[in-house]
Amino acid sequence: MKMETTARSLASALHIAKGVVRRRNSIPVLSAVKLSDGRLSAMGGVDMRVEVALPTVGKSRGATAIDCHSLAGLLAHIPGDEAIEITDGHSLAAIKFNGSEYQLPSYAASDFPTMLEKIDGHRTALDNVGFIAAIKRVMFAASTDEFRYYLNGVATVYLNGEPAVVATDGRRLAWMPIPFIPDGAEGAILPSEAVAFLVKRRLEPKAAVFSTDSLSARFEYDGLVFSTKCIDGTYPDIARALPEPPAPYARLDRREAVAALLRLSSLDALGNDCAVILTGADGRVSITRDGGAYSGRETLSCKTFDTGGFKVGFNGRYLLDVLSALSGDAVTLSSEAGGSGLSPSIFASDDDPLHTVLMPMRI
Amino acid sequence: MKMETTARSLASALHIAKGVVRRRNSIPVLSAVKLSDGRLSAMGGVDMRVEVALPTVGKSRGATAIDCHSLAGLLAHIPGDEAIEITDGHSLAAIKFNGSEYQLPSYAASDFPTMLEKIDGHRTALDNVGFIAAIKRVMFAASTDEFRYYLNGVATVYLNGEPAVVATDGRRLAWMPIPFIPDGAEGAILPSEAVAFLVKRRLEPKAAVFSTDSLSARFEYDGLVFSTKCIDGTYPDIARALPEPPAPYARLDRREAVAALLRLSSLDALGNDCAVILTGADGRVSITRDGGAYSGRETLSCKTFDTGGFKVGFNGRYLLDVLSALSGDAVTLSSEAGGSGLSPSIFASDDDPLHTVLMPMRI
Repeated sequence: MKMETTARSLASALHIAKGVVRRRNSIPVLSAVKLSDGRLSAMGGVDMRVEVALPTVGKSRGATAIDCHSLAGLLAHIPGDEAIEITDGHSLAAIKFNGSEYQLPSYAASDFPTMLEKIDGHRTALDNVGFIAAIKRVMFAASTDEFRYYLNGVATVYLNGEPAVVATDGRRLAWMPIPFIPDGAEGAILPSEAVAFLVKRRLEPKAAVFSTDSLSARFEYDGLVFSTKCIDGTYPDIARALPEPPAPYARLDRREAVAALLRLSSLDALGNDCAVILTGADGRVSITRDGGAYSGRETLSCKTFDTGGFKVGFNGRYLLDVLSALSGDAVTLSSEAGGSGLSPSIFASDDDPLHTVLMPMRI
Repeated sequence: MKMETTARSLASALHIAKGVVRRRNSIPVLSAVKLSDGRLSAMGGVDMRVEVALPTVGKSRGATAIDCHSLAGLLAHIPGDEAIEITDGHSLAAIKFNGSEYQLPSYAASDFPTMLEKIDGHRTALDNVGFIAAIKRVMFAASTDEFRYYLNGVATVYLNGEPAVVATDGRRLAWMPIPFIPDGAEGAILPSEAVAFLVKRRLEPKAAVFSTDSLSARFEYDGLVFSTKCIDGTYPDIARALPEPPAPYARLDRREAVAALLRLSSLDALGNDCAVILTGADGRVSITRDGGAYSGRETLSCKTFDTGGFKVGFNGRYLLDVLSALSGDAVTLSSEAGGSGLSPSIFASDDDPLHTVLMPMRI
């Protein structure tokens, strides 16, 4: 095998590959990137695959697979304009540039997995519809609990007939409308690791292929194709969890509330899961966090609705998360049971299509 | 106790205090800052003390001690212009601002330690002589080995009759000349924790007091006094470790060598303590790192002296440290035994008063 490229091309392809390749793998070749004519391939475990265009110089022949993180570490310190020559033989690859020579372990290119290389299905153009941008806004609500593996990602669903992306961990939920659901994507759950890779890209993908047969998805960018398995599970029926009809009970200045919650969160001697209690009446809300020696009370102005006063408890960290995830000036809290704190509350901002729901805490 | 100040004043005093107060202390009051009229005091264990000016508003009376990191966390989220009122009673301090109220644990001000409050000795003006700047350049070479506690800091010594600050861990050494040794500072060893606090300040201290009786030092800034115990030990005789007379054996382009060593260090599968071998002859030096499957060879141009060729091994990480610590274009390597690799090498740059010494590794 022999190949020539520039340090800049190889370093930028490796930079993308590094984002999926795991440092420790039970199958050694999964730690490698495959280099073949014009292309670098990398696996994230057996669930994700990245193919990056890699411009070569002159004639190249054959293919090889080289340890990804060692090669990326080396390329990070080679000036971009240097010409890089890669050859291999006897499980060792030689990397040569400007009089320097390095040896790294290599694997036969034929040992590199082919899974996720092809995904059959209808190709949906996604240019600038903001599919990934919508996913980025709801991903904070996804679960990390491995026993509820089907919540460890973002789902594409119809919510009351409207296409949306949604994430929840059972205690908080976020959904964001999207213009349409790509072919085959209804009910598909993209795993959080794949979501993390997708939202890191600066641009939206040009197109996507969702395969219901192989439960996998493929995203196409200029010079980059990212494929992932989807989570094999059924997403819960979100519409059922939504309060209906929701009665608004409070309207807050969002930034003021975020600042107050940041101060209350600073009482970290109380731990992360401590409840904050919102008590509202007569155009004021007091937000309290109480734990003996450490306690805090904030008072904000607040519109109270016909329901009169309200008293509701939330996990302080989750409340801060949903208020920070929303944009806009004012946020309205509504709940099926009004301000009694007995049913989930919807948080919505006038100028923001993102909706979030929070379960109350018993107080 | 009652006191009024602004969030900005209190936050900036706490920001400095946070840098010394440990989060866990066997004596609880050491986690607190003492607030008294116009002053905030904080302890770093029982070895360091900081006193910061704290402008108050209106009349204040009494003093209290409040948990430092909780108070700093809270103040980090209060707008700078808010007026803060602090009162205390029954082991609880109340912090009030703009309709909000917090409670934090407090201690009697009389329980707060008085150690290091006063240090007797002659006061030496230090304005702009670069005492701390010199310490900053050598600190990288200090030891972290607790069994050689007397090397866990930076010493002020006469080196061949010239005043200097010096640090070493027995395998590498750095010294930097200073214009004079402050009164009482000869042989004083400032512990690494104190050094870390001092080099974080933007300005040099106005003055210092070194007490040989109490083995402690005090540094005075505008609105800030920092005191520390010195290490109770005798610094080794550095001059003895220096090759004499040193014979130059190589002269390298410093930046080229740093770039080559960064690439060789990227082979982290070989671990941090792997030797690099410099082999020089005929105006070239090759730097190699070898470990079976992972290996690298760099070739640089290099002036070789009358000694002819040379072959010497160093710890790659330490070699990178000393070359990065130096400034300037060219660095000259000299050694008592020439280029044989049998005695320590001095690394010196033409334009830089910093000198470093590195022990060779057996090759």
